[in-house]
Amino acid sequence: MYFYKEDLINMIVPDKPDPVAAKVLQEALGGRFGEMRTLMQFSFQSANFRGKAKQYRDLIRGVFLEELSHVELVQSTINQLLNGSGEDAVGAEGLSGAPLEDAIKDANPHHFIMGAQASLPVDAAGNPWTGAYVYSHGNLISDLLDNVVLESTGVLQKSRIYEMSSNKAFRETLAFLIVRDNAHQNAFAKALETLGVDWAKLFPVPNYDINKYPECRKYVEMGFHNAQFNFRLDETRMGEVFQGETPSRNGGQLQVTPPPQGHPVPDLPGMPNEHSPGLRDLNS
Amino acid sequence: MYFYKEDLINMIVPDKPDPVAAKVLQEALGGRFGEMRTLMQFSFQSANFRGKAKQYRDLIRGVFLEELSHVELVQSTINQLLNGSGEDAVGAEGLSGAPLEDAIKDANPHHFIMGAQASLPVDAAGNPWTGAYVYSHGNLISDLLDNVVLESTGVLQKSRIYEMSSNKAFRETLAFLIVRDNAHQNAFAKALETLGVDWAKLFPVPNYDINKYPECRKYVEMGFHNAQFNFRLDETRMGEVFQGETPSRNGGQLQVTPPPQGHPVPDLPGMPNEHSPGLRDLNS
Amino acid sequence: MYFYKEDLINMIVPDKPDPVAAKVLQEALGGRFGEMRTLMQFSFQSANFRGKAKQYRDLIRGVFLEELSHVELVQSTINQLLNGSGEDAVGAEGLSGAPLEDAIKDANPHHFIMGAQASLPVDAAGNPWTGAYVYSHGNLISDLLDNVVLESTGVLQKSRIYEMSSNKAFRETLAFLIVRDNAHQNAFAKALETLGVDWAKLFPVPNYDINKYPECRKYVEMGFHNAQFNFRLDETRMGEVFQGETPSRNGGQLQVTPPPQGHPVPDLPGMPNEHSPGLRDLNS
Amino acid sequence: MYFYKEDLINMIVPDKPDPVAAKVLQEALGGRFGEMRTLMQFSFQSANFRGKAKQYRDLIRGVFLEELSHVELVQSTINQLLNGSGEDAVGAEGLSGAPLEDAIKDANPHHFIMGAQASLPVDAAGNPWTGAYVYSHGNLISDLLDNVVLESTGVLQKSRIYEMSSNKAFRETLAFLIVRDNAHQNAFAKALETLGVDWAKLFPVPNYDINKYPECRKYVEMGFHNAQFNFRLDETRMGEVFQGETPSRNGGQLQVTPPPQGHPVPDLPGMPNEHSPGLRDLNS
Amino acid sequence: MYFYKEDLINMIVPDKPDPVAAKVLQEALGGRFGEMRTLMQFSFQSANFRGKAKQYRDLIRGVFLEELSHVELVQSTINQLLNGSGEDAVGAEGLSGAPLEDAIKDANPHHFIMGAQASLPVDAAGNPWTGAYVYSHGNLISDLLDNVVLESTGVLQKSRIYEMSSNKAFRETLAFLIVRDNAHQNAFAKALETLGVDWAKLFPVPNYDINKYPECRKYVEMGFHNAQFNFRLDETRMGEVFQGETPSRNGGQLQVTPPPQGHPVPDLPGMPNEHSPGLRDLNS
Amino acid sequence: MYFYKEDLINMIVPDKPDPVAAKVLQEALGGRFGEMRTLMQFSFQSANFRGKAKQYRDLIRGVFLEELSHVELVQSTINQLLNGSGEDAVGAEGLSGAPLEDAIKDANPHHFIMGAQASLPVDAAGNPWTGAYVYSHGNLISDLLDNVVLESTGVLQKSRIYEMSSNKAFRETLAFLIVRDNAHQNAFAKALETLGVDWAKLFPVPNYDINKYPECRKYVEMGFHNAQFNFRLDETRMGEVFQGETPSRNGGQLQVTPPPQGHPVPDLPGMPNEHSPGLRDLNS
Repeated sequence: MYFYKEDLINMIVPDKPDPVAAKVLQEALGGRFGEMRTLMQFSFQSANFRGKAKQYRDLIRGVFLEELSHVELVQSTINQLLNGSGEDAVGAEGLSGAPLEDAIKDANPHHFIMGAQASLPVDAAGNPWTGAYVYSHGNLISDLLDNVVLESTGVLQKSRIYEMSSNKAFRETLAFLIVRDNAHQNAFAKALETLGVDWAKLFPVPNYDINKYPECRKYVEMGFHNAQFNFRLDETRMGEVFQGETPSRNGGQLQVTPPPQGHPVPDLPGMPNEHSPGLRDLNS
Repeated sequence: MYFYKEDLINMIVPDKPDPVAAKVLQEALGGRFGEMRTLMQFSFQSANFRGKAKQYRDLIRGVFLEELSHVELVQSTINQLLNGSGEDAVGAEGLSGAPLEDAIKDANPHHFIMGAQASLPVDAAGNPWTGAYVYSHGNLISDLLDNVVLESTGVLQKSRIYEMSSNKAFRETLAFLIVRDNAHQNAFAKALETLGVDWAKLFPVPNYDINKYPECRKYVEMGFHNAQFNFRLDETRMGEVFQGETPSRNGGQLQVTPPPQGHPVPDLPGMPNEHSPGLRDLNS
Repeated sequence: MYFYKEDLINMIVPDKPDPVAAKVLQEALGGRFGEMRTLMQFSFQSANFRGKAKQYRDLIRGVFLEELSHVELVQSTINQLLNGSGEDAVGAEGLSGAPLEDAIKDANPHHFIMGAQASLPVDAAGNPWTGAYVYSHGNLISDLLDNVVLESTGVLQKSRIYEMSSNKAFRETLAFLIVRDNAHQNAFAKALETLGVDWAKLFPVPNYDINKYPECRKYVEMGFHNAQFNFRLDETRMGEVFQGETPSRNGGQLQVTPPPQGHPVPDLPGMPNEHSPGLRDLNS
Repeated sequence: MYFYKEDLINMIVPDKPDPVAAKVLQEALGGRFGEMRTLMQFSFQSANFRGKAKQYRDLIRGVFLEELSHVELVQSTINQLLNGSGEDAVGAEGLSGAPLEDAIKDANPHHFIMGAQASLPVDAAGNPWTGAYVYSHGNLISDLLDNVVLESTGVLQKSRIYEMSSNKAFRETLAFLIVRDNAHQNAFAKALETLGVDWAKLFPVPNYDINKYPECRKYVEMGFHNAQFNFRLDETRMGEVFQGETPSRNGGQLQVTPPPQGHPVPDLPGMPNEHSPGLRDLNS
Repeated sequence: MYFYKEDLINMIVPDKPDPVAAKVLQEALGGRFGEMRTLMQFSFQSANFRGKAKQYRDLIRGVFLEELSHVELVQSTINQLLNGSGEDAVGAEGLSGAPLEDAIKDANPHHFIMGAQASLPVDAAGNPWTGAYVYSHGNLISDLLDNVVLESTGVLQKSRIYEMSSNKAFRETLAFLIVRDNAHQNAFAKALETLGVDWAKLFPVPNYDINKYPECRKYVEMGFHNAQFNFRLDETRMGEVFQGETPSRNGGQLQVTPPPQGHPVPDLPGMPNEHSPGLRDLNS
Repeated sequence: MYFYKEDLINMIVPDKPDPVAAKVLQEALGGRFGEMRTLMQFSFQSANFRGKAKQYRDLIRGVFLEELSHVELVQSTINQLLNGSGEDAVGAEGLSGAPLEDAIKDANPHHFIMGAQASLPVDAAGNPWTGAYVYSHGNLISDLLDNVVLESTGVLQKSRIYEMSSNKAFRETLAFLIVRDNAHQNAFAKALETLGVDWAKLFPVPNYDINKYPECRKYVEMGFHNAQFNFRLDETRMGEVFQGETPSRNGGQLQVTPPPQGHPVPDLPGMPNEHSPGLRDLNS
């Protein structure tokens, strides 16, 4: 069973609306290598796990639990980027300084038709997420290899998306996720290392320089790239795998740690012109 | 952030393998009205919530948290129904008494090709789950109405699927979910009641007689149809909505309660012929 | 059997081309809550209807028949918005004053590749319509509830799309459909009212002020929001349901009426550069 | 605008339930070359028609109008094939003599989960219909050529489906549609003939012998293969095209005729175990 | 078995980056009537061919072999159009003179997220290619008719896409493919002619004037519109069909010829900011 | 440019029809890890290759060229399994000894509706192949890692499919492909080895014992698991990578070799009842 505390796993940095950034950030939520995929893939792999080597199941499940928070973080960041991006109820421009007729040209129109300027389960090109993305074949090594590809491609895509806007909310969330994807690369690579393979000259993939992303540095200093957060309320065996020297060229010791300190979930104001929430009272 | 304790929200009753039952039960997992849809729909609705009436957001999020356990319960039930349903590594018949060549005829072949006799993110006809199912329009009333349709259709479909096998693991899980879908119908209907509509003569939908499903009775006696389980580790305002007389014809008082006692997650044995987990040691 | 008279159900107001408006208006044609969905959903619900309470089947079929005209109206409006929106055969600018190279940037490129500047069975993000949208479960109450959600979401989306362009053809069609969706909300809500539920404080959804849309007013004055048009050439029992006080807060008496007066179908000129119709003679 | 008279375009011959026949007949409804495709394709082609040669638009629209009745006919035939095909509410066998547990093995399970033993907008393999099937490019000749392929493939598929069951309801509907698809092949081929091409040695496609299908003979004797039914309540110019010698090897004169005599729409009994219609009274 | 020589079937003319042109040119690669469709359709038709008239199989396979080169040509042209279209690693503008933030607005964002500024198996609206496009019904005449529609629509679409940019790489590739599609129209039309139909007044479809596309002229002068390239290393019977008077109004004699002279495959430079190829050495 | 010699890359062993085997073998053709995926993935990766390390591009392209023959081999095997699997034109049983009404129950009905008992671009559950499967991100290491997962999963799935029928044509083709997928695993793993990673204790994935598949042995004895066939008619640099000790635990030296000796493409007889090829003469 799953429990919740209303805390975001990272902060949402305030900045101006940017609907194009919201459109491309959808890839990290509903794309083929986005957080909905990691969440569902690790959910199926841990529920379908066979055999007695449960330290591997615990590791996969441990990452799955963090992905729940990642989904929430990206949803909230997209909401922040969309909030106020179009014309308001009396025809005035939104926070973005652009009327809706202009905003809609380069944006994903579904952000303004289905969502009330809010996140959707789709990718950067507007394609809905599909269960066909999930890899859960039950062979531990092939599952772990696919997880390595998934996390590596996650970083690769995010490093490309990062270039698409200098918006601070956008870049901060991407930087946090790049560091965490790196930790999860380490987790699955380490698991493969315990089973025989030696990654030390190859990883991380892609071969990025962490210094290129200034927002990443503080997370590296906090050791987030070599940490596995533990969201379990009972015992977990994942520390049997996630320990010792990192499999990455970057070096360091792997460590299971408590979750990071939480951050407040931002309030989204009512938006009468979107009929959202559309209540007639309740200080809506 | 999300936390986890390794407890299933209901028991898995032992019975023989039944791959046809596994195939049709996929509807309750990856179908248009299955648990992956409820999970994702309520995730998006709660993250995208606008305005100050947060008791409604807390209610939606509260149901979302339970759906995480429902996904795990249905995955585990499907695994139980598939486990041992085909020929084993030395050509002997599986637990089902049927060789794989026969099992495959009426089953979903992907259960034996992608899964190592394990659950998949697809529906009863093998179509992958799609993000296009999710309804999150940000208008509180339309979101709640769609949630009522979603939960009502969930019950309706499960009452039809229930007839498709007398397997005990299959029926027990369906019965538990029918009662909980009923509670969630009540939750969203009650929320609409606080906003104006009067459902008392219409609900539940469909108009089923709980006595028809013997497995349901104990859950009704435990009050599960009028209970909202609370998985929050901090405060929640959902009790401001989920209280008082049930909106259903069946009567009773709505009540927020602690989660039910957990049940052990079943062990799935290694299956060498499926190369699952495929480890060479580790007592796999 | 179905019969036809070449009359549009509402007028197409002349205005300049607007390919971005055409792109977003596709949602009302081929989107998850667009007119192709209502047409097909009500077609399946009426053909699949079980039992003796045929006044409900006649009501559903009655709305279905009108949706045929709605599909034609939205197709024609999109065509009007696209017509002349790009460069003509000799390289001159189109009616929009924009060369095709510019028009294509923010438009749906399929409007100019598949269509000869013409409507398509897709939504605002270019996703093709899918049969997976159709809800026809055969339980009258769940079917009617889903129809209420469908019509309510139709209005909600159209009220958001309306803000995306001030083009007159675009807004007139949307305004007409908003009023008719309101009437169909009333129809299905009334049907549910006869079966027990009391909507009077909740409807319409969303809670929009009709005065906000100046194009709507004349249709309200004509009583279109409380009218059910009758396209049957034989008897119908839908008046047994669609009668009496409207279920909406807005008040008024429901009434089955003859169809509105028809409007001419606009001529679309040949477009040689699109090879459309591409005939060599016949005054093409 | 569209009008309706409650008449099926052909009779439904009584016979036993046959859910496998229902599954494969879905191809003729929701498949890539089924009636939903013809309906939508001709709807878009006639609404998007450019230029002055409106006799061709009238011809396409004339076929479109008949397709509306074809959709209804196939829906009704599938319903007949499914009706009573599984266990009833008190556990007794259905009309088919088979309990639901057996029926479900070879059937489309969605016929019993989504539908209350009723038709769905999917094909024989359970894939939902998609708007991507529609061809409407606005070039009259390429549109007509695709229509010829569509109608020819319709016949080809139906002649293959015909072999899959000897059920009389199934074969009668297929036979009627084979003859009508032949007439529509003739219609579009004739249109191409007026524009230059000479088909006389090639058609019909496939090169089938009408005597092979005994159910077809009466329709051929009634001239249905060379007739274009006219469902217009106003004038149509389609007779300018659909006239003279048939383009088919089979010979004969093309003729626009009134619609055939209608047939009653069958009543579908309530099915309490499917909660359909699920009403508590109204002689449901 | 298949063999390869590193030669493009036509040249890539140098010009500036143009990501909007790259977006729309995707239709010719991964669209419903693009080169991936022709490749796969003719692959299935030739592998599934029944009966003794193998000259037709050889003809279909002969076109299939050329489509392999067409896929490579369009991939390479899209790569050329994307190459350097955004900001480089140190934040400078790319070759296009536009920073990535601007480029991304009108482009397909997947070209910069999945691809390292490279081609994808999708259409102009970003929809992935699907096997549902393939037509292989095994009836020779219906297969050939669909091939005629496919090649005709290919030309029709390309003639519309041609107008969307004056980029020279873009137009040269389209012009070459227009001429070759015309030859393939001729091939399939001729095959139908040998089976009975007379196309001479109808073809080509659409009825385009080759002089409109200056890039086409040299290919016509080289006879490419009436040539069938032979990529077989053993004997082929396709010359039994592809010979004699062209079925097209344009006239000329059909002829099987050797493949055209090859053109060098362009080198794509490494793109460090896209982590492509991302090697640390090897003169990457 | 691509050239062809009419030779299958392996033999088709004669055996009885088996439409269930044909259904599940579709996974190896049109599934997420089937031959259409490998073909298209390596096509895009080689066309989109960046940088100077062309020995890797040549290796990827070399595998791509072989996949063209694999697609043809699986198409031909499926055709063999379907050929004669249902009732013939005069109502007699087919080669399978089963009438069509029975064959259709467990088969993919599209094999008999779209195909004339012939292969289709779909997977074992009937889902069409989609371009969304293709991975071509342009980062050499992530592309190679995904290729390793793709080939490993290919073997894993084939080892599971192998158990589903003892049909000899079915098992021979699977055995050949298992050995070749192993060689391609080696190819991509070796490429990663030259870039730093050490696989020697991990591979092959899954950890299968080649002796389990008697059909595999002769291919292993011929060295096919350590061979890279060369289909280039010009120079290739792939031997710079594909050489030296195999990365697999199984040991051996990697070697670039000429293609294997070809095998005749089987003739498929005409099938009049399927209207295939449907010619009236030409000894069809």
